[in-house]
Amino acid sequence: MNLLALVSILLVISSVHAFQYTELAQYVDSHQEEYVEALRDWVAIESDSSNILRRPDLHRMMEVVAQKLRLMGGTVQLVDIGVQELVSGQTLELPKVVTAEFGNDTNKHTVCVYGHVDVQPAKLEDGWATDPYNLTEVNGNLYGRGASDNKAPVLAWIHSVEAYQALNMELPVNVKFVIEGMEETGSNGLDAMILAQRDTFFSDVDYIIISDCGWRSRRPALTYGTRGNCYFFAEVEGPKQDLHSGVYGGVVIEPMTDLIGILDTLISPSGKILIPGIREAVAPLSDDEWRMYQDIEFDIDNYKDKIGVNQLMYNNKVDLLAHMWRYPTVSIHGIQGAFSDSGTKTVIPAKVTAKFSIRQVPNMDPAIVKKQVTDYLNSVFAKRKTPNKLKVTMVIGAKPWLADTKHPLYEAGKAAVKKVFNMDPDLIREGGTIPIARTFQDVTGKSIIMLPIGGFDDGLHSQNEKMSRYNYIEGTKLFIAYLNEVSKIEKVTV
Amino acid sequence: MNLLALVSILLVISSVHAFQYTELAQYVDSHQEEYVEALRDWVAIESDSSNILRRPDLHRMMEVVAQKLRLMGGTVQLVDIGVQELVSGQTLELPKVVTAEFGNDTNKHTVCVYGHVDVQPAKLEDGWATDPYNLTEVNGNLYGRGASDNKAPVLAWIHSVEAYQALNMELPVNVKFVIEGMEETGSNGLDAMILAQRDTFFSDVDYIIISDCGWRSRRPALTYGTRGNCYFFAEVEGPKQDLHSGVYGGVVIEPMTDLIGILDTLISPSGKILIPGIREAVAPLSDDEWRMYQDIEFDIDNYKDKIGVNQLMYNNKVDLLAHMWRYPTVSIHGIQGAFSDSGTKTVIPAKVTAKFSIRQVPNMDPAIVKKQVTDYLNSVFAKRKTPNKLKVTMVIGAKPWLADTKHPLYEAGKAAVKKVFNMDPDLIREGGTIPIARTFQDVTGKSIIMLPIGGFDDGLHSQNEKMSRYNYIEGTKLFIAYLNEVSKIEKVTV
Repeated sequence: MNLLALVSILLVISSVHAFQYTELAQYVDSHQEEYVEALRDWVAIESDSSNILRRPDLHRMMEVVAQKLRLMGGTVQLVDIGVQELVSGQTLELPKVVTAEFGNDTNKHTVCVYGHVDVQPAKLEDGWATDPYNLTEVNGNLYGRGASDNKAPVLAWIHSVEAYQALNMELPVNVKFVIEGMEETGSNGLDAMILAQRDTFFSDVDYIIISDCGWRSRRPALTYGTRGNCYFFAEVEGPKQDLHSGVYGGVVIEPMTDLIGILDTLISPSGKILIPGIREAVAPLSDDEWRMYQDIEFDIDNYKDKIGVNQLMYNNKVDLLAHMWRYPTVSIHGIQGAFSDSGTKTVIPAKVTAKFSIRQVPNMDPAIVKKQVTDYLNSVFAKRKTPNKLKVTMVIGAKPWLADTKHPLYEAGKAAVKKVFNMDPDLIREGGTIPIARTFQDVTGKSIIMLPIGGFDDGLHSQNEKMSRYNYIEGTKLFIAYLNEVSKIEKVTV
Repeated sequence: MNLLALVSILLVISSVHAFQYTELAQYVDSHQEEYVEALRDWVAIESDSSNILRRPDLHRMMEVVAQKLRLMGGTVQLVDIGVQELVSGQTLELPKVVTAEFGNDTNKHTVCVYGHVDVQPAKLEDGWATDPYNLTEVNGNLYGRGASDNKAPVLAWIHSVEAYQALNMELPVNVKFVIEGMEETGSNGLDAMILAQRDTFFSDVDYIIISDCGWRSRRPALTYGTRGNCYFFAEVEGPKQDLHSGVYGGVVIEPMTDLIGILDTLISPSGKILIPGIREAVAPLSDDEWRMYQDIEFDIDNYKDKIGVNQLMYNNKVDLLAHMWRYPTVSIHGIQGAFSDSGTKTVIPAKVTAKFSIRQVPNMDPAIVKKQVTDYLNSVFAKRKTPNKLKVTMVIGAKPWLADTKHPLYEAGKAAVKKVFNMDPDLIREGGTIPIARTFQDVTGKSIIMLPIGGFDDGLHSQNEKMSRYNYIEGTKLFIAYLNEVSKIEKVTV
């Protein structure tokens, strides 16, 4: 064999096995209009998992995801996860979970990408500038409900696999998908599905990747912790029906007054949680943590501008980051059953239900929090000596999650960020909850990384949610690079 | 002239002038299906004055009333009362006020019947057993929004005039009508219209009759007082848009927490109003009043059963009646802008507006109450040291009203009740507000009576509002008899 022949053979081998980031990145750039169209199609499906009237849309959304993955040649399943029990006692079919597999080379690592395609409620009249279900691009931002949370990241993962396929490049790792449709209401049915498939679908998974979060600033980030969430309903019931406040006001003991009274005992004006036992359970802030928070890029003035307030609960970076990420808090979301429209109505609502939630951090335990909150509210309610009835229910109980930032999965993340963005990522925690991270960890025992591509100002759960075109497209490249970095992790045979 | 001829002449005279109650009552009985159908047609029009999207229905409602009165030969006007200013700064045409006149014999008294044909909001999903805009008869009750408040009473007045006409009997008094379409939101525009027509339409009116209220028990009643109402919006505004409670919870000072905090300072668990100055302004309960309340038929157990509670704010008749009728109270109706649907949403609402109202009694003054409430809420809000902004607005400020039960108008009422029901009426006050009573009194200087035909359990402003067929039909007879009793009042030339 002459030298030329040898070089030719080596080139062929390299074309199959070597990671050709430039070609892949170019492919992504030249297909970005297609990617935006795909996101438009997905956003147009009102897959609101909290609205039972939208359940048909949610079912359709799962079918669309499955079909996309099937067309790419994946081994796809629509996994039946049973039914949801409604308060009325009726049941409603849960959206199926989509699983898919690309590659099963035992010499390669296997990653499992988790994402969700259900969304929070959104209505134009909530104050959206554009129709929340019609993806609208303004100044490089793609506005629409679910754009950032979590439809664009799921699509970016799908497109990253598709890019390898389109260029006939072998995937550096086997890629699995688990895409669900109940995340926004507590991932009903998913825990059981993971447990049931622990020794089948999940048995050869090495790493789990979640991209259901966002950066802290314009600098890319790796997320190593999330808060959990305990979501409560506090229902106060009095008369058997709503009453005229003129006719009955003064003699009826009003459920609304009782509810306001107990809600006011949850948290102080300065943000101190008043429920006994909650603050005592929180892990103390270590010196290491304090130093780490000091190093994070966080422009307080810019942050205040963005949300439109001139004062926050704290006025220094460490306190703010710590209260976003590693301290609990109480938010009162609203009251169901009272008069909530515009205009005036002189009604005494007969049954009112407050919705509030408490963010969970290490070392809180949702089961204990449930008891602490229930006991406390019952005791303050009892002091009112009202004949109305209080019922406290915890409808979501999601634990917090914390990872080791020195793990090879995080080193791979740092390298991929360096490759695509030519900078080091922020190491951050997430104030929100991705309950499934904790479940994956507890049930499968696998390592998990959260690799966000959402922007810091995407407005998740709020009006005018968006994903920037930049984050969507560069994020797709980040996923492509990350798959390659993971393939370099030394494979350990247990 | 022989005797026979004389008798014939006398009979003819008597057939024109004598009050033939039996014939009139029989006419009413035999036409009751028509009356129910008329009510069905009126209830089917969703004339909700608080919902600006329903304004076209409200305009149509006023036209239907006018057309009915025109067909009866009345002199009818649709009086333009201008526009309503919306919070947005836009304006919206107010529903015209219908005025009508039947007869202008200066030898007779002239009564003016006031009523309204707008309704409170109602949705099937609020808990109605039947479609609120489809009048449904169950066990002799006619269920529908506005059935009792105030469409059936207005129709009963129209039908009472129509009965005289149908039997070719002369009306014993001249009858005028003033029918408006904004009562449920504070009679916007009506005060100015009454003032403008004080010396024209109202100049020859002797007495004003209002039937926008109900009995206290199964015994018919005459109403001699109403509470007024000051309706407030307390808006707390923070971030420029709703935020995700996971991402921002703990660092943002939440408007909802601030709002709950100030609402909780309005009234104590035992019903004590905590706003300084309010209780001090209330006229003391006199011994006479105390004795009067003692005599009123009021079955506390039945009352509790009806509304489905096992304990009221007080446990004796006098305290209960006094707190329904002649003491102020605070009711919190609801919160706009927060999450109020079923399900869960992890949102920090950016702007929340509480709706609450304070019932007014002698000697409170709405202008002073406005200042007391605004100052108080601003002061408790300031103590929270929150950066959020509070805006307190009084959107309705209606004064209470009180009449003399010894006035000839009330004596006529007692006689009419005796005629139709063969019993004496309860003399009662109304906890609700009929602001226009006070306006009529202040502007026209005329005497006013409230002559209710609604049942004590009609569920005004609440789910399953109804008018019983019995009250509707016997009420029509009461109005017929009342017109005759009024004609007997000695006519005083001033």
